[in-house]
Amino acid sequence: MTDTFDSTDSGRSGTPLRHLQTVAFDGAFVMRLGGELPGVVCGYETYGELNAQASNAVLVCHAISGDSHVACHDADDEPGWWDALVGPGRAVDTDVCFVVCANVLGGCRGSTGPGSIDPATGRPYGPGFPDVTVEDMVDVQAKLLDHLGVTKLLAVIGGSLGGHQALAWATRYPDRVGACCALATSTRLTSQALAFDVVARNAIQSDPDFHAGQYYDKASKPDTGLAIARMLGHITYLSSQGMSDRFDIDRDSPRQIDTDFEAKFSVGSYLAHQGQRFVGRFDANSYVTLSMAMDLFDMGQTHDQRAEAFGAATCRWLVVSFSSDWLFLPSQSREVVAALTARGQAVTYTELHTAAGHDAFLMQEDVKRFGPLVRAMIVSAEAGTPPPDSDSLPPGSDSSSSAQVEALSLIDERIAELIKPGESVLDLGCGDGRLLAALRERGAGRLCGVEVKEPAIVATARRGLPVLDYDLNKGLPEFSDHSFDVVVLSATLQAVGRIDVLFDEMLRVGKRCVVSFANFAYRDLREMYAEHGRSPKAKGEYRYDWYDTPNRRFPSIADVQDLLTAKGATIHQGIYLDTQAGKVIAADDDPNLNADTAVLVISREG
Amino acid sequence: MTDTFDSTDSGRSGTPLRHLQTVAFDGAFVMRLGGELPGVVCGYETYGELNAQASNAVLVCHAISGDSHVACHDADDEPGWWDALVGPGRAVDTDVCFVVCANVLGGCRGSTGPGSIDPATGRPYGPGFPDVTVEDMVDVQAKLLDHLGVTKLLAVIGGSLGGHQALAWATRYPDRVGACCALATSTRLTSQALAFDVVARNAIQSDPDFHAGQYYDKASKPDTGLAIARMLGHITYLSSQGMSDRFDIDRDSPRQIDTDFEAKFSVGSYLAHQGQRFVGRFDANSYVTLSMAMDLFDMGQTHDQRAEAFGAATCRWLVVSFSSDWLFLPSQSREVVAALTARGQAVTYTELHTAAGHDAFLMQEDVKRFGPLVRAMIVSAEAGTPPPDSDSLPPGSDSSSSAQVEALSLIDERIAELIKPGESVLDLGCGDGRLLAALRERGAGRLCGVEVKEPAIVATARRGLPVLDYDLNKGLPEFSDHSFDVVVLSATLQAVGRIDVLFDEMLRVGKRCVVSFANFAYRDLREMYAEHGRSPKAKGEYRYDWYDTPNRRFPSIADVQDLLTAKGATIHQGIYLDTQAGKVIAADDDPNLNADTAVLVISREG
Repeated sequence: MTDTFDSTDSGRSGTPLRHLQTVAFDGAFVMRLGGELPGVVCGYETYGELNAQASNAVLVCHAISGDSHVACHDADDEPGWWDALVGPGRAVDTDVCFVVCANVLGGCRGSTGPGSIDPATGRPYGPGFPDVTVEDMVDVQAKLLDHLGVTKLLAVIGGSLGGHQALAWATRYPDRVGACCALATSTRLTSQALAFDVVARNAIQSDPDFHAGQYYDKASKPDTGLAIARMLGHITYLSSQGMSDRFDIDRDSPRQIDTDFEAKFSVGSYLAHQGQRFVGRFDANSYVTLSMAMDLFDMGQTHDQRAEAFGAATCRWLVVSFSSDWLFLPSQSREVVAALTARGQAVTYTELHTAAGHDAFLMQEDVKRFGPLVRAMIVSAEAGTPPPDSDSLPPGSDSSSSAQVEALSLIDERIAELIKPGESVLDLGCGDGRLLAALRERGAGRLCGVEVKEPAIVATARRGLPVLDYDLNKGLPEFSDHSFDVVVLSATLQAVGRIDVLFDEMLRVGKRCVVSFANFAYRDLREMYAEHGRSPKAKGEYRYDWYDTPNRRFPSIADVQDLLTAKGATIHQGIYLDTQAGKVIAADDDPNLNADTAVLVISREG
Repeated sequence: MTDTFDSTDSGRSGTPLRHLQTVAFDGAFVMRLGGELPGVVCGYETYGELNAQASNAVLVCHAISGDSHVACHDADDEPGWWDALVGPGRAVDTDVCFVVCANVLGGCRGSTGPGSIDPATGRPYGPGFPDVTVEDMVDVQAKLLDHLGVTKLLAVIGGSLGGHQALAWATRYPDRVGACCALATSTRLTSQALAFDVVARNAIQSDPDFHAGQYYDKASKPDTGLAIARMLGHITYLSSQGMSDRFDIDRDSPRQIDTDFEAKFSVGSYLAHQGQRFVGRFDANSYVTLSMAMDLFDMGQTHDQRAEAFGAATCRWLVVSFSSDWLFLPSQSREVVAALTARGQAVTYTELHTAAGHDAFLMQEDVKRFGPLVRAMIVSAEAGTPPPDSDSLPPGSDSSSSAQVEALSLIDERIAELIKPGESVLDLGCGDGRLLAALRERGAGRLCGVEVKEPAIVATARRGLPVLDYDLNKGLPEFSDHSFDVVVLSATLQAVGRIDVLFDEMLRVGKRCVVSFANFAYRDLREMYAEHGRSPKAKGEYRYDWYDTPNRRFPSIADVQDLLTAKGATIHQGIYLDTQAGKVIAADDDPNLNADTAVLVISREG
């Protein structure tokens, strides 16, 4: 029974942390919102060895109910909560990296928290413990890194509250962070998520055994309130679909457990089990303190406020959201990306489709999918700029081949020739990042890809290139006016529903744009149509049958030119190709009939 | 302050119900899950007058925290919780209908519940009150209708738990229900919704003042637990977007309220207010009893079980879901529709796009949108079969003109001629229901439309025709094999992404199919394409520009014929039209060139 209940719980059974180390920092520690502690203790675990240059450190930050035991240390050790990501040969490779994970300030697993003894009174702080913010947690971790001799982190990685810490690290200690991997997180909680926290704290604080937080010397602790808070938390960590998959089948057959809580339904016995299990390993005051720290975390309500908040950061970024996460919405991750993008920072973003809800960031199956992106960030941070070739990849890396520059298609060659060294380029529908990689080789400026296909996103990221998982049908709201020298749209136009809207957006974001597309009025296609009365098919983008093509738009060169002209865009240059014959078609040789492909250079100003 | 907090709350301030009437039913009332009550009292309110034939009664069922005060009785009366739907001239028109709303069994507003005196002990039932099911509630309401002299209801209407009651009415008393309007409901709760109820009950039942349910003679009641349960409920009634819209702007500026609960954030003060307000008007045991009744409601886990459960019903159906309702998912409403459709019942279904969450069924703006559908159901039920012409509409109806049969297009005339009297017809992309209305006039059998546009759905429903809000891109999973004599797809093919999949589905569901579509290889279009090299435009479906058309598919007649042949379908008949010239094109006169429209009759068997 216990097996089916054990899951993605980011904490474990409450056994002592065998590999816990502690360090005490004497002297007053002033908290961000006022109040101070006379000193702080930081409990932490480390994995792997710090190298001689102290250049291989990675900091992992845990979520509300997690702790420093991110991974198991050896075969005899208890499982860690992120064994799927961290360990020998894993994405965060402890054979190569020195991994640090600290218990957060305010918690109850080895760092100073409300249950710690206040030297002034000789009793636990309890309600006297000051409000903790995410920034305070991070400041203690910075002291820890000083203590460990780590000046700069290759990467800081965290999900949920751990993601909040990662965002705070990148903005509060910009010089100390090479890459920031922020998973299933946000710049602040939704009002809905905040509301759940409020109800959870009300359950704890209205428990008669809470005694206004000073219950440590009492026979009974506020276990009922804490258990109810935990039950509520568990609902929010799973998706509705995930809960149905798990509990619908035996809805009315609860597991037999010993509980005073309701255990009438299958899901009820699960919640009772999780609630009861949690009180054995967690302190109610710590839960209140940490959930309040999450609620207080706030990098701004508006885009401009967020962009300002991220202004100090200089690292590379990986932002990952999960489609069924309703506690930390994918739209909130996109807000992070938009703020970073507005500041010209290099971000890779993906939204993974999964039924695992918020817990997905902990689930083995999902970790397998975003692990390569985390690895690519660490590798890029390790190599600095320019990003790595295959030689600099750490042992065990499997990205050596795809990181190499591959041959471009004839059309992409033409596009690359239109871009000058040093120019910044946004490639919409970047595929596996081949064009961007070639441009980097030729000495381009800032580069960014946009793509929706997960394998293509991973392939681009593994080249060390930033890539954003955005749907071009929604325009380019994340990008500022004229924020790129060149915006490229190559072999993608035919799949975009509102290409007229996207053209407006491209012309806004790019100082100039390069558009390549297959000509649906090419001679062969016209013939199929006119003579045979059948929907044309061709090589390339138009290789599909009419009824199962991903394409939605079938314009000729003249159609596109007409539309651009109607939009007030200037067509500076047109390159017309008959790729089947391998020749260039002159502008006065009726390219609308004779070319199967056009490459246009356009801009709004002229 | 209170104003901004008062909202969609389906109960009110706890003042006495001035228009409450009660009736006592003596004799043992045996509960469905065992246990019995020595007698039951039913508290109710009525609106309007029962007519001489007792044929104008409508029963409204309330949700968990609602009561019999569905609408105000006069200008001096307190507002009702569904004034937007029920009242003089409203969709449920009390000038015409006799409206009954009963307080549910197990509640605390006038019908027998856990707080009622048990004659055997002279004390409140408390924990001795038996488990109540939705079916028990409905059985008491049936006694009430007997008492009122109502044999048959025009309609039973309810949302949420009220929707559960409506479903139970239609299946438990099929002969007494003309139409069933089930809003924001399901055949059973999701495991997630059930989990929230479990946590809410745990909060109540673990409150030390709960005293195992026998708290009525105590100085303190389990107000804390009940308030926490209510806070949790409120979160689930709103959408995340709705909460953000309301609370993000002044997140850190809570309303000043007198509370022992946390009131640090704006949303926290809202929850504290709602929680505290609720305990003044609701009994904790009733909350436990009613939420358990919802959790126990179960018409089956699988499609087959649900179809079996709905087998006895004979009424007309309206099912409405709300896009942002995450407590009762639109997919659950579609399960209801699928079960009914499998049983050949007449259903209208729509999913309204709204940010109001589960509460949408109570919100004035959303009521305005689904109100006409409720009205159409009542009008249809009033008229019986065949549905009404304009003469039978009640006074104040505004659907008189659209209910009339309008002229068909030339193409629809041709389609109508292909359908024999008595045949059942499923019209995919039915628009405003004109073809179906014409077929009804000609004496068709069972009719059903499928449409996605809200105004078209309303227009079809107002003709008294069943119409389903389904996306044809998802196939026709709700329909059984060969469940219609004819499936029509007219002027719709070009907007469907996977028309090949839809053809398979049509050929499965229909004994034969009629497909009409514009020919993209019509002479004029070919010329535009071949001679001018521009995407063709034409009248009708192809009137859009290439870049902003809703169309995704551009086949010729030959293309469609090829695809159908490849699928093993037999083309029994082809009618080819040049609608612009107003003439029929003979099959040997190259219709793929000369016809702008084709009508094909096809089937799988041949």
